[in-house]
Amino acid sequence: MLLPEPIQRVIEAFARLPGVGPKTASRLTFFLLRGDGALPDELSKALGALRSGTATCGQCFNITAAGEELCPICAHPEREKALLCVVEEPLDVLAIERTQGYRGLYHVLGGALSPIEGVGPEDLKIAELLQRLKTGQVQELIVATNPSMEGDATAMYLQQQIAPLSVRVTRLARGLPMGGDLEYADQSTLLRALAGRQNM
Amino acid sequence: MLLPEPIQRVIEAFARLPGVGPKTASRLTFFLLRGDGALPDELSKALGALRSGTATCGQCFNITAAGEELCPICAHPEREKALLCVVEEPLDVLAIERTQGYRGLYHVLGGALSPIEGVGPEDLKIAELLQRLKTGQVQELIVATNPSMEGDATAMYLQQQIAPLSVRVTRLARGLPMGGDLEYADQSTLLRALAGRQNM
Repeated sequence: MLLPEPIQRVIEAFARLPGVGPKTASRLTFFLLRGDGALPDELSKALGALRSGTATCGQCFNITAAGEELCPICAHPEREKALLCVVEEPLDVLAIERTQGYRGLYHVLGGALSPIEGVGPEDLKIAELLQRLKTGQVQELIVATNPSMEGDATAMYLQQQIAPLSVRVTRLARGLPMGGDLEYADQSTLLRALAGRQNM
Repeated sequence: MLLPEPIQRVIEAFARLPGVGPKTASRLTFFLLRGDGALPDELSKALGALRSGTATCGQCFNITAAGEELCPICAHPEREKALLCVVEEPLDVLAIERTQGYRGLYHVLGGALSPIEGVGPEDLKIAELLQRLKTGQVQELIVATNPSMEGDATAMYLQQQIAPLSVRVTRLARGLPMGGDLEYADQSTLLRALAGRQNM
């Protein structure tokens, strides 16, 4: 190959990231070679500390700083402990926090049930969730898995598991997205919006 | 901010790459946290060695491995020394090499003339190019700057500078791209294709 090995190695590592093909990987690498002199080293150091500097919250399994037992949300004294929101990934917690409309706690499953990809209940933090619910502190469980096949299957499974416990289980509303145009809404979204219509 | 500092730092560094916004930066970072355990460290090490492991070829200014005076192309005994191709960036060398249709040498300018961005002739390796041409070894100079405003301005400037020397100056052909559809060709490409029509 024509490229020096140090360049080739960066391109190959970049190309293993999701959504980054060989062409984008080359473009990023040559940008780093030419652009801001400090960026390659800053990115290198930040990446080197990524895994060692982070850990999993012992209660909700969200990502937190290394050396802390609980994440800032679980440790916060003013969050409502009666309200628990189940999500698939840490990024989902971030999305809900950004709305500033939720003051309860979270539980991060670490994925969704997917027979095709071989993800079963034992691969997710479902046993830990049931354990949390059995303490009796939680009154409502909001299931906020993705509106996808896997997310829906996970929600159904959770509902079955939680049925024997006296916990109210709710699900995020489905319907038209804000700012959307009725004309461009897909069939199943529109069907859900109709089925879930509300009094004005 | 809700995210632990080690994560925040990686997201911010990624977001400084071209074409990577804050959302993509988060997605890449969380992929690295969750996915293949070795990738963050491999990417970190590769990036750390990127600048120190590379240097600029003393003759053509292409990127090469550190510690080598000449790049593999300049050092290759069988490349035609009478043929010189001028390009803007190292990635352009790669693109031409991939065609396997060129056996001459290269000269990497390091950009194109752009009064708006404040790039003048002294910011590019133009003096070095003229020096190379004055040795008399080069018989044909192929100007392969980008088919853009800046690339064309650079080509014109080079032609003026080289006119006093007895070197043939050529330019890459303009016309319809292979696999393209006449119907979808833009006006200026079609105009160039007409003007440059050739006998069959």
